[in-house]
Amino acid sequence: MAIIVKKFGGSSVASIDLIKSIAHRIAVSYREGDSLVLVVSAMAKTTDELFRLAFEISDHPSRRELDMLLTAGERISMSLLSLALHNEGFSSISFTGSQSGIMTDSMHGNARIVDVNAFRIREELAKGKIVIVAGFQGVSPSKEITTLGRGGSDTSAVALASYLKADLCEIYTDVDGVYTADPRLVPTARLIPSLDYGQMLALAYSGSKVLHPRAVEFAYKYKIPVEVKSSFTFAPGTILHSDYNTTTDRYMEDKTITALAHKDGLIRYLLSADEALLWALKGWNNEIFRYSFENDSIELLIETKYESEIDHLISSKALSLKEKSSGWACISLVGLGINLDPCILAETLEIMKGIDLLRVGHSEKTIDLMLKSQDLKVALLRLHEHYLVSSADKGGKS
Amino acid sequence: MAIIVKKFGGSSVASIDLIKSIAHRIAVSYREGDSLVLVVSAMAKTTDELFRLAFEISDHPSRRELDMLLTAGERISMSLLSLALHNEGFSSISFTGSQSGIMTDSMHGNARIVDVNAFRIREELAKGKIVIVAGFQGVSPSKEITTLGRGGSDTSAVALASYLKADLCEIYTDVDGVYTADPRLVPTARLIPSLDYGQMLALAYSGSKVLHPRAVEFAYKYKIPVEVKSSFTFAPGTILHSDYNTTTDRYMEDKTITALAHKDGLIRYLLSADEALLWALKGWNNEIFRYSFENDSIELLIETKYESEIDHLISSKALSLKEKSSGWACISLVGLGINLDPCILAETLEIMKGIDLLRVGHSEKTIDLMLKSQDLKVALLRLHEHYLVSSADKGGKS
Repeated sequence: MAIIVKKFGGSSVASIDLIKSIAHRIAVSYREGDSLVLVVSAMAKTTDELFRLAFEISDHPSRRELDMLLTAGERISMSLLSLALHNEGFSSISFTGSQSGIMTDSMHGNARIVDVNAFRIREELAKGKIVIVAGFQGVSPSKEITTLGRGGSDTSAVALASYLKADLCEIYTDVDGVYTADPRLVPTARLIPSLDYGQMLALAYSGSKVLHPRAVEFAYKYKIPVEVKSSFTFAPGTILHSDYNTTTDRYMEDKTITALAHKDGLIRYLLSADEALLWALKGWNNEIFRYSFENDSIELLIETKYESEIDHLISSKALSLKEKSSGWACISLVGLGINLDPCILAETLEIMKGIDLLRVGHSEKTIDLMLKSQDLKVALLRLHEHYLVSSADKGGKS
Repeated sequence: MAIIVKKFGGSSVASIDLIKSIAHRIAVSYREGDSLVLVVSAMAKTTDELFRLAFEISDHPSRRELDMLLTAGERISMSLLSLALHNEGFSSISFTGSQSGIMTDSMHGNARIVDVNAFRIREELAKGKIVIVAGFQGVSPSKEITTLGRGGSDTSAVALASYLKADLCEIYTDVDGVYTADPRLVPTARLIPSLDYGQMLALAYSGSKVLHPRAVEFAYKYKIPVEVKSSFTFAPGTILHSDYNTTTDRYMEDKTITALAHKDGLIRYLLSADEALLWALKGWNNEIFRYSFENDSIELLIETKYESEIDHLISSKALSLKEKSSGWACISLVGLGINLDPCILAETLEIMKGIDLLRVGHSEKTIDLMLKSQDLKVALLRLHEHYLVSSADKGGKS
């Protein structure tokens, strides 16, 4: 008898057919006696559509009312999924974030989880029901409805798994799991079956979109076993836990590159160092990809989708912009102990020959390369071929 | 019946009195049935003295002979400790790295552990003996004696603990454990009783000298519980494991600064980007504190003690030096999720007001500040007071 939390993102519940299909897959895979909690996002595009409606009414909608509006999105998907489960013969019940006991602070639009008090979920599980929970939402100390911001639904799922001491928290998504590189750009990329929280965190911070760093941090802190897997196939994906997987090391003190992460479509802003900027960026948690200050300049690397917001911020605060350029990408090699080994650095630069690198740096578990977007694919292919395709794999193809 | 590996560094076995005192403390704390393996470094200054002797004979001593010579250092300390244990009534036996089955690659002076095959240790433990092992040394595939380079003895201990599936690997040293900041500079610094490998790794890479990053990586990979503690008091120190300590978080998604690490006495070299430099730095594992490339320049941050070696390297390879300056220090704030939160960054810069910062950057678990050595102490004091002295502590003093 296991307790399992399953989270389905917006693309997994995007249509009635998909919702029915999830209910059916759950019926097929259900094992008698298991306790299931299903955390759902709003149907894909619903949140954007609700946003659009709000901004048609007001240029500056109240954050409180906006949260009230947006949380209707999960209310729709969760009740539909509950209905679909009834059709499959299950007894199920849906709860809002508030009913589930997801207690947050008062920061509307970007609330942090303060505590979980999910006694109602526990009671319903005890009655043998499948419980469906609205991800991405919670309730503040003054009983207001809040939303959790980016990475919110994954974080809801991990937080509930922590409260329930779940055996597993499954994050269903539109990819099969964590790969050695993005398989859309690197055809030889392999699924990583098992990964420690620390390396997953480095990957998430370096651009891997499979799981938000915030959810990884939560899992790391509370030691929640998480599996990232496909909502289309339900096939085994990538399991995250605290164990470093030593099977890919050739010897004990080997320094292995576990995977490549990248972020494309970055805009680089170079501004005069000004505290007004920093205060203006409050609330931009995790939306800034990289920042650095050197002498009197601040450099920000930000995704294209935030361009207009940043431009607005710069002009409204009268900040002095020194340079702005787009078309940047970053690649991070992730592995334990690789960062300060000059051999790996020398090798990496050798592989990158002919590709313009604006910058090479490192962090605790990464070597970081900044390059032009146009060179991203060839750089990823070369690095993956060198570090992540074993000689056996290469031989096998000839 | 526990299996415990205890490692004593050079300063802990620096004199006959200290060796006798360790033997006595072991006698007092010994619990019937426990299996003890003691890993020792050479007596403090012995290695330096042996180095000096070698260089009196030759400017370029063979690395093989040098390793043969240096490994005499642990041979002395381990046999003396064994004799001291005989005096305490124990049956004990000392082993070299080779006899202990520490298998390494062939990189003399900086060998990596490839495997451990410590069957002789296991046999002697089964006979009820205390086994003493020479740290820092191993044997290559061609049966040559190798030394492990920086962090070697700690790594020997952790590697043996892994082979023996030890219940605990105790690293005895001249400090009590890991502190919230260096207690010599920050009087209010507190001992951290429990710390996860990931944050310890960030601290070690950022300058905490308590444990070498290499040993932390080994412990992380093989999940070895490690305790860092004082060889003078044997009092409880800091236990490292895979569990994040949530007790210092005020709420679930809190972003807590766990500790400050720093590195002082850094020299900054700015060189024209040149691959010759990189290849010349091969073998400099972990001796470069930070590196980065930007456009056509390479920046290296290196401790003062390597200054003459780097200067020699630059002149012998005819590398073009653009700038060299000394008197630099770095401070890292370490914590989960602090790196991309503009509030913490804004707060940190506010605290640093009036202190010149050359640079502010971040890595996955850190915010990194580069400043002049002369400002280090006041910066540490301010940051520690703000982030690591709780308001209760502050109130308690008034």
